[in-house]
Amino acid sequence: MNFGILIFPDVEELDFVGPWEMVGIWSDREKGPDNCFIIAQNKEPVTCSKGLKVLPDVTLDECPELDFLLVPGGRGTRKEVDNPQIIGFIREKAEKAKTVLSVCTGSFLLQRAGLLSGKKATTHWGSLDRLREFEDVEVIEERFTRDGRIWTAAGISAGIDMVLSFIASITDDQVAGRIQLYAEYYPYQKLYGDAHKEEGAPGYIKQRGI
Amino acid sequence: MNFGILIFPDVEELDFVGPWEMVGIWSDREKGPDNCFIIAQNKEPVTCSKGLKVLPDVTLDECPELDFLLVPGGRGTRKEVDNPQIIGFIREKAEKAKTVLSVCTGSFLLQRAGLLSGKKATTHWGSLDRLREFEDVEVIEERFTRDGRIWTAAGISAGIDMVLSFIASITDDQVAGRIQLYAEYYPYQKLYGDAHKEEGAPGYIKQRGI
Repeated sequence: MNFGILIFPDVEELDFVGPWEMVGIWSDREKGPDNCFIIAQNKEPVTCSKGLKVLPDVTLDECPELDFLLVPGGRGTRKEVDNPQIIGFIREKAEKAKTVLSVCTGSFLLQRAGLLSGKKATTHWGSLDRLREFEDVEVIEERFTRDGRIWTAAGISAGIDMVLSFIASITDDQVAGRIQLYAEYYPYQKLYGDAHKEEGAPGYIKQRGI
Repeated sequence: MNFGILIFPDVEELDFVGPWEMVGIWSDREKGPDNCFIIAQNKEPVTCSKGLKVLPDVTLDECPELDFLLVPGGRGTRKEVDNPQIIGFIREKAEKAKTVLSVCTGSFLLQRAGLLSGKKATTHWGSLDRLREFEDVEVIEERFTRDGRIWTAAGISAGIDMVLSFIASITDDQVAGRIQLYAEYYPYQKLYGDAHKEEGAPGYIKQRGI
């Protein structure tokens, strides 16, 4: 079982390291994927949005068939939507993958690869209106959403919640619970200041009535 | 203002990338630290616990004075507690730093550097008993705890909550709230399965009565 995470310059760090951690624990402790690797266009270090430098495991050309493909977001997506190698890779790997997932503005890369047509999807709250410009995408203001084999998460940290739910969906709640316990993922719900009351804040926060 | 994150082989990925993301947003959007860098013993790529390969920005010798030092955990800490370069670095930088923070079993590196004597501290729930073996450390079962200029977080994902609270403490709740909104850090509270009911689960979870 192969789980691949595609990265590119100016990818947002937590978008992919949150899911990476959960999948890594699944793999290490709960008979998850045999391989989880970081894929990039070439073997050079990738400088992420906040400056973290990550070495990929495999290039686009070297990458084997994937059971699961995760595409993170970040400001780099604005350039990568026009990168035919990246978009072609997503389209090709998605054909045989059981599941394709995105985090944050990674959904724009799935859209360009033709994977969101007629689907429910979400993205970072600050990009929801941009995603609505694609009339064949049903934009959802949830922390994450699933439509068949396509999962899309809201911004940055939401990938952790999505991947835990994804793991539960293909294993069971007990496996996901043990991963949650190992990662000690029992986050505070504290809201700082008033930013979450802004008009642009995501619908699922407003729906909580906070 | 310099924020340094120390890494080493088999460091746990989310332990440091969660805080890195929050500090990066603070820096980019809210006049946070001028520099945030990844420090390691040498310039070679560091292979983390789940296999992610990260290039450090500076070596121990190159590292300037730090205002803030964060030490993540992971299974690599069991070896690094006996690494005099790493422990000496923490001890030396802590002398001038305003704040020293650890995530997960990073607290064992702070302990070895003499920073937890007479202090409240925490760690990954699976290592609480090991931390209790140091009689001069008051072990706390909270998501994170602060004792003066020393902040310690529980396991893996808890570093995100700690750093957001730390940022609020030296700026204000409005700044922390805007960082929270940008990172879309409004996590689900879903508990999967029964793992959190295990005897070893951390006290702050049991105290929630779940």
